[in-house]
Amino acid sequence: MIPLMIPNSKTVLPQIRLLRTRLPQVACLLLACMGLHGQEQDAEVIRKIYETSLSQGRSYEWLNHLSNQIGGRLSGSVQAQQAVEYTKKELEGLGLDRVWLQPVMVPKWVRGTAEFAYIESEPGNTNNVPVCALGGSVATPVGGIKAGVVEVQGIAELQELPREEVAGKIVFFNRPMEATLINTFEAYGGCVDQRHGGAAAAARLGAVGVIVRSMNLRLDDFPHTGSMSYGDLPASQHIPAAAISTNGAELLSTTLKLNPQIKFYFRQNCRQMADVLSYNVIGEIRGSENPEQIMVVGGHLDSWDLGDGSHDDGAGCVQSMEVLRLLKTTGYRPRRTLRVVLFMNEENGMRGGTKYAQEALTSGEEHVFALESDSGGFTPRGFSFDCTPEAFEKIMEWKPLFEPYLVHHFTRGGSGADIGPLKPQGLVLAGLRPDSQRYFDYHHAENDTFDAINRRELELGAATMASLVYLYDRYGLPDQPAREGGR
Amino acid sequence: MIPLMIPNSKTVLPQIRLLRTRLPQVACLLLACMGLHGQEQDAEVIRKIYETSLSQGRSYEWLNHLSNQIGGRLSGSVQAQQAVEYTKKELEGLGLDRVWLQPVMVPKWVRGTAEFAYIESEPGNTNNVPVCALGGSVATPVGGIKAGVVEVQGIAELQELPREEVAGKIVFFNRPMEATLINTFEAYGGCVDQRHGGAAAAARLGAVGVIVRSMNLRLDDFPHTGSMSYGDLPASQHIPAAAISTNGAELLSTTLKLNPQIKFYFRQNCRQMADVLSYNVIGEIRGSENPEQIMVVGGHLDSWDLGDGSHDDGAGCVQSMEVLRLLKTTGYRPRRTLRVVLFMNEENGMRGGTKYAQEALTSGEEHVFALESDSGGFTPRGFSFDCTPEAFEKIMEWKPLFEPYLVHHFTRGGSGADIGPLKPQGLVLAGLRPDSQRYFDYHHAENDTFDAINRRELELGAATMASLVYLYDRYGLPDQPAREGGR
Repeated sequence: MIPLMIPNSKTVLPQIRLLRTRLPQVACLLLACMGLHGQEQDAEVIRKIYETSLSQGRSYEWLNHLSNQIGGRLSGSVQAQQAVEYTKKELEGLGLDRVWLQPVMVPKWVRGTAEFAYIESEPGNTNNVPVCALGGSVATPVGGIKAGVVEVQGIAELQELPREEVAGKIVFFNRPMEATLINTFEAYGGCVDQRHGGAAAAARLGAVGVIVRSMNLRLDDFPHTGSMSYGDLPASQHIPAAAISTNGAELLSTTLKLNPQIKFYFRQNCRQMADVLSYNVIGEIRGSENPEQIMVVGGHLDSWDLGDGSHDDGAGCVQSMEVLRLLKTTGYRPRRTLRVVLFMNEENGMRGGTKYAQEALTSGEEHVFALESDSGGFTPRGFSFDCTPEAFEKIMEWKPLFEPYLVHHFTRGGSGADIGPLKPQGLVLAGLRPDSQRYFDYHHAENDTFDAINRRELELGAATMASLVYLYDRYGLPDQPAREGGR
Repeated sequence: MIPLMIPNSKTVLPQIRLLRTRLPQVACLLLACMGLHGQEQDAEVIRKIYETSLSQGRSYEWLNHLSNQIGGRLSGSVQAQQAVEYTKKELEGLGLDRVWLQPVMVPKWVRGTAEFAYIESEPGNTNNVPVCALGGSVATPVGGIKAGVVEVQGIAELQELPREEVAGKIVFFNRPMEATLINTFEAYGGCVDQRHGGAAAAARLGAVGVIVRSMNLRLDDFPHTGSMSYGDLPASQHIPAAAISTNGAELLSTTLKLNPQIKFYFRQNCRQMADVLSYNVIGEIRGSENPEQIMVVGGHLDSWDLGDGSHDDGAGCVQSMEVLRLLKTTGYRPRRTLRVVLFMNEENGMRGGTKYAQEALTSGEEHVFALESDSGGFTPRGFSFDCTPEAFEKIMEWKPLFEPYLVHHFTRGGSGADIGPLKPQGLVLAGLRPDSQRYFDYHHAENDTFDAINRRELELGAATMASLVYLYDRYGLPDQPAREGGR
């Protein structure tokens, strides 16, 4: 770029330029007096939300602490408990009406010492490859496992193999994420069954271990962990399962093509401990007009243990905290009760989300809206809504208010894992949808760290969430189906 | 994320799912026979373009070579010449109808040895701060310059100061980029005048040097270079100008507030050499029906010297090369002539763009469309078009074809610096608009390197450009104003 030819300066966002006149703190009040109504007033509130987030945001400092002072927050770990205490203290400092911890028992799985693996092309000729145990896996024997390898592209292909081809072998699931899908979450959905259910399927055919290609669209050296399950397989039949980096997977596959007789060795000493007490962290601003109607914003406070969980889901936690702070800072008092919930144990058990919804049901709380951020701290592109067509039609009326901020993509679809259990209440569920291109470069891997976060992208996400919460609070949504549970 | 709750899987992009049926290579022909017309056929061509780019793209490997094997490509440098030769060879390998070099004399400015600077709070008490010479600046005396500092927020504030407050001092321009603007290019446009014209304005008031806050929205330790000009100031009055990192600027400003008497020292030995011969690199596919009508896609091959110029503008070059390759690979033969132009010397002289337009005029070539990528290799968000309202109205009819790829933002405005000189031909000019949030983290600094590039984002940009070129080639645009130059 040369200095005097700014290609999209002054012209790209006329909406923003129109709105840039500075207004005093009492903007809402003044605007009302001046006769600004409807979308004009909404546009002004939203402008203040974005401006505040980008100029005085707190989310980035919070995430810096969570990521760099605490680190990975696997359920049941000391770090998870530190994160509970830290975020509770920070929420208390915001002057909310109430901050509390909701106890929940969570599984505790520990990785143990560093995993180790190699490909043995012939005795004495080995290549080390990066692996990590999948969350929930059993350990190998102390000396590790060495066996021949059967490569498959998925569970269906495995299940067509005769038992004698699989028994005593390590099954290598190598179906990659589909690069041509624009939405990388769709590509993830297309191969994560290998990670989740591959070990159980392989064990049923007598395999002794499972190696799964990392869910990563790049070729690199990071193994990506994630949860797996043995389903109803008896404990005596559980076999160890590990992820291998994408480069490692390519090497293994190529080596197998050259010589199907090669052996693979891996060693891990992870294990499942007894459940431990942990907490959802909750803070709320009580509604000024309809306090009985509860709106939730949240993310999950636990993470995997390899990185520091900055994108998954430290970002969603600090953005959710920031939603409440932004509304307070800009002087907007919600009519309905606004609650931030930092859910525990999304990654390997969903206990926090389940517990929150159960307690809401038990206590007869009425939840009307829930929004989760759990797709990374990247530039916000839109929302996905789990709601009725009528509600979505109303939501689409709000969409033009987001376009000055380049938030264009509103769809019907899923929302977030932690708020899913609230669905029987018949509320509107929503998920923030950031740009997804880089997400799986970091997801569940040791490079999901604070340096991969861009401050402005994180802040834009928080402002986008706060703006939707504001609009829901102000207008509500029609035709929500009758609640199945609750009062 | 837990594995079985994919929040936006399957639902976000129904358009894409509808289009995913695989079709043979002769798709266009077949589709025509089968009665697929208009937007349906266009959607299929565009789907193939994106799919090819994401699964078999070459842009990332090209950029890897440009960035990691060649490096920063300042005009007149050995690396710039290596880049000319490398890209020419790569274009020749694509089987285009013609590849050639267009000679152009370019300025040659050299940085010399590493710059050095410190804040001297009192004699013997110094803090080193990161600085770099601005492109085009003169050197300091061999022993450097040490002087008192006048901090201003811009040229206007400087010009209100009495000469005696400025004479003999170093002027420190410290107006930061405005964080609340969504489009970071607009924020850049709002303060780059300090860098470009600050030295001349300060020299006129007797200043001995200029230090400019880096054009960067982050606080970090990278000084960002960029071009500056002394305008019509006599050479004897030229004073040295350097950029200081944003952290350095904050430190300097704070120190000045504590004690306005502090001194600043800096040393640089850059200099302007005689112009040297360089080249625009050009390749073309001759149009099958209207070869006289020329469409250009391009970026600039030169870069600054601190990093390797991956985002600015290696990305734009390899994306432009990829446009031609994608159309060839997907079997689309343009009706009009499609030309890739890798312009030399955008950063400090614009000689390549100027020369290309002059030669087009001289030879009576008819340019009907030009598209530049020079805003970084990030996720494509849309285009900016410099065209008539009538042409823009037609372009907006194409916009739905881009929405499956989350390319939503079409505006009228600027295009690109290098293609700007073609404007008198009355053609449609366009600029790719990627996500701008991270761009100025890297722009003109030593961290503009290949590791800041995401492969998929780069490839999506190339596919987005190729799709627009395809649509222009197929449909043209109405009501382009009469050409001022040419035949």
